[in-house]
Amino acid sequence: MSENPDVTAIRDQIEAWAAAVRAQDMPGILRNRSDDMVMFDVPPPLQLRGIAAYGASWPQFFEASPKPIRFDIMDLQITAGDDVAFAVALMRCAVIEDGDADLDFRLTVGLRKIDGRWIVAPEHHSVPAED
Amino acid sequence: MSENPDVTAIRDQIEAWAAAVRAQDMPGILRNRSDDMVMFDVPPPLQLRGIAAYGASWPQFFEASPKPIRFDIMDLQITAGDDVAFAVALMRCAVIEDGDADLDFRLTVGLRKIDGRWIVAPEHHSVPAED
Repeated sequence: MSENPDVTAIRDQIEAWAAAVRAQDMPGILRNRSDDMVMFDVPPPLQLRGIAAYGASWPQFFEASPKPIRFDIMDLQITAGDDVAFAVALMRCAVIEDGDADLDFRLTVGLRKIDGRWIVAPEHHSVPAED
Repeated sequence: MSENPDVTAIRDQIEAWAAAVRAQDMPGILRNRSDDMVMFDVPPPLQLRGIAAYGASWPQFFEASPKPIRFDIMDLQITAGDDVAFAVALMRCAVIEDGDADLDFRLTVGLRKIDGRWIVAPEHHSVPAED
């Protein structure tokens, strides 16, 4: 019950981010992310660079998602040092194009503590490739 | 020219790992990885848990790869704290089944410093999903 307070802060932040995605709350989605963040997303392209490109990627997901939006954290593991951390999660969303099928995906984020706040820099979402 | 020595150590380690993949050198591939590591790989399944499952995933890649094996680091960014770090890379391999086509993929790893050595715990490889 005495979890590292940085782990608690990062868990709260990732849960708030997932809730913001479900609510299509763009300021909440963008909160605590680096201006020069790199995003490896599920759809192409290979990478997105910068917070503007990251923000612009979300409407495509909202359109592809049945409502209410599913964006659930199934399993989350956080490793935090003094000022560098990473988190790994299994997540579940859903997509209209597969008959509203659930879609499980993998998430990895790297974070840095800047002025007392944990900021996400790289963010990596993926599904396994088709056989 | 005064790079953080932890960043240098992690870069050297990732370059040695990529060289071990090219050489199909399994001890080199497994070096500096956690026994309980989690791997999100390009092919299914959603996740692999543990160093044995990680090791068992490589022959499939070797068989799918034209020889000599391509496994090149195109761009590598490392963020290191005192005992936690992460690295993000764009990588290039090749696959026989696409007519020996190049295949670009994304890599994220998280590392912890244990007894003075940087150890990879989560490792995430992916390609964008098909449109």
